[in-house]
Amino acid sequence: MSTSSQSYPMSGGDDQHSYIHNSSYQKAVIDGVEEKARQYILEKIDLLNLNPDLSTFTIADFGCSIGPNTFHAVQNIIDIVKLKHLKESQGISTHVPLEFQVCFNDLPNNDFNTLFRTLPPSFEQKYFSVGVPGSFYGQVLPRNSIHIGHTSYTTHWLSKVPENVCDKKSPAWNKNYIHCNNLLEEVTEAYKVQFTKDMSVFLKARAEELVPGGLMIALGECFPDDVAMYETWSGIVLDTIGDCLLDMATSGVLTHEQIELFSMPVYFPQYSELERAIEQNGSFTIEMMETTRHPLEAKQLTNDFVTSMFRAFLSTMIEKHFGYTVVDQLFNQLAKKLSKHPLDFEKCKKNMVYYIVLKRNEH
Amino acid sequence: MSTSSQSYPMSGGDDQHSYIHNSSYQKAVIDGVEEKARQYILEKIDLLNLNPDLSTFTIADFGCSIGPNTFHAVQNIIDIVKLKHLKESQGISTHVPLEFQVCFNDLPNNDFNTLFRTLPPSFEQKYFSVGVPGSFYGQVLPRNSIHIGHTSYTTHWLSKVPENVCDKKSPAWNKNYIHCNNLLEEVTEAYKVQFTKDMSVFLKARAEELVPGGLMIALGECFPDDVAMYETWSGIVLDTIGDCLLDMATSGVLTHEQIELFSMPVYFPQYSELERAIEQNGSFTIEMMETTRHPLEAKQLTNDFVTSMFRAFLSTMIEKHFGYTVVDQLFNQLAKKLSKHPLDFEKCKKNMVYYIVLKRNEH
Repeated sequence: MSTSSQSYPMSGGDDQHSYIHNSSYQKAVIDGVEEKARQYILEKIDLLNLNPDLSTFTIADFGCSIGPNTFHAVQNIIDIVKLKHLKESQGISTHVPLEFQVCFNDLPNNDFNTLFRTLPPSFEQKYFSVGVPGSFYGQVLPRNSIHIGHTSYTTHWLSKVPENVCDKKSPAWNKNYIHCNNLLEEVTEAYKVQFTKDMSVFLKARAEELVPGGLMIALGECFPDDVAMYETWSGIVLDTIGDCLLDMATSGVLTHEQIELFSMPVYFPQYSELERAIEQNGSFTIEMMETTRHPLEAKQLTNDFVTSMFRAFLSTMIEKHFGYTVVDQLFNQLAKKLSKHPLDFEKCKKNMVYYIVLKRNEH
Repeated sequence: MSTSSQSYPMSGGDDQHSYIHNSSYQKAVIDGVEEKARQYILEKIDLLNLNPDLSTFTIADFGCSIGPNTFHAVQNIIDIVKLKHLKESQGISTHVPLEFQVCFNDLPNNDFNTLFRTLPPSFEQKYFSVGVPGSFYGQVLPRNSIHIGHTSYTTHWLSKVPENVCDKKSPAWNKNYIHCNNLLEEVTEAYKVQFTKDMSVFLKARAEELVPGGLMIALGECFPDDVAMYETWSGIVLDTIGDCLLDMATSGVLTHEQIELFSMPVYFPQYSELERAIEQNGSFTIEMMETTRHPLEAKQLTNDFVTSMFRAFLSTMIEKHFGYTVVDQLFNQLAKKLSKHPLDFEKCKKNMVYYIVLKRNEH
């Protein structure tokens, strides 16, 4: 029942290039906001008011990928809710022990087999797990069925590449660039339109699924309003990957035409753009919207770390467009380019990590 | 949160040996009882009494494997419930359209990726799908969360091989036999004990998960009380597979020791044994318990059909115990033996297909 969307899951399985082994950058963010999540959930969610007969508390992670970050995130939420429930039910004799259900959502071609195989062992994992296949750009769970929704580093994946950016006749054609680096105004505009549309669909779907009073927690990256993608270190890495592809076209491994028809369905919004998208939805109240620096950004990330991280992030997409054989060579070249021209994290402009808690309005 | 159990999923993927392409025997049963299911659900389930504010109707298929049978079965249930709901809500102005959620349950090593990839297209599949990894010999879903449970050809898979049957020092040792063919009394007894224990756990878990008044539909095969496994055609096929393994031991492909330590965690109960196991649970009322002949059993099944069906059923287990290389040779030999000594379906004693509708008692 989900809308169609282009789908590039994180690298599955658990080999050295998999997302499982290359998700520590995201993990660092989760660790950083853990304490904030704790405080806000304790303050904001009123379990017994949600439903005095509540016996199952349901949590959904939208765009969960394959762990371990998703397991960590949902366990944190459960720990806090348990604490809160215990406090609220003190002195109530009819207190029923709460059961937890966790809905792990991702696209149908996500590697759910690996997700399920790597679930925490049953003595730790005191919740019922279900996998929910479907694009989060559409309703994937029943109305009023979720108490806390969570999504981390997901909505920068657009539902599709904005159509005109791969059209050589359009003023919004992205030429030899492979992502929205903000160097071409019409391209940026096309990405902005798609992002706004997608966020609207995302929030509308979550508004259906969440119970009134339920919380939606969203983490990800955005830019300060005066920063462009090409000025940030991740923008520079993506432009460098674009350069590697051009080198490979020159040496005949792939064609220039292939690059001209490729642009990533990925967009990091500016802060005010993100805020506007949420306010326009109207079903949620922004309880908290904070930004921080990424905890790892202060350090000089190693080239190996950066290469592995972008490989896990991009390989499925690269493989689909350019073919399987290109992946190894591309990321080998990226590693070489990065060692010749190391990223200067001090000079790069900075992304922001956003951390948002939304409350579903009562009807 | 599920109990541990030995797990031999049906052959995954969608190649020629997969369960997807070898599940027509089970499908024939489902077709046969479709009309009965329709009638009983229409009579027995009272949706609006279950919960007048009901907005999501939840169905679970326990031991769903990877389709297409599971999709067919749940769609039938949904069609009937929709009809019933429409009838019951006529004239009620506050009528909310019902949403459906289907919980596809199987062991964590079931091929959920294939299950999700082969879900009916969204324009047909008017329900939300979730995958539930976990042994059905344990609670896999929250309390009071399921309105109709379904299970088809599953509970003959025991949670484990009865311990003593692979112990060469035990009087219950199953010697060179690979399943409970009822030729050794102590072996039969060990299997009966395990089956009774497993059914008790299965029903206890379903009693937790089903709402009061909810229905549990179970299909499978059992024997008339006076029939032994070795007298039936499927018993004969399994004994023939055992003979093939012995031949392979003689020719050195595997060892006699391996066969002596192997016995399948599979048991088909007698009719009265099954009835007793349900009655002992006490949480359910038997609304209907019928048996029929298998619709395909009247025909002489072809050797190819039988070989493919048993290969899909057994290959994971054979592979795990005897190694990957054994599977092809084993089923080639089975095909040869069957063509030399064709099954005489007329002479074989008959299994029964059982079809049970249980109603979860009110607390």
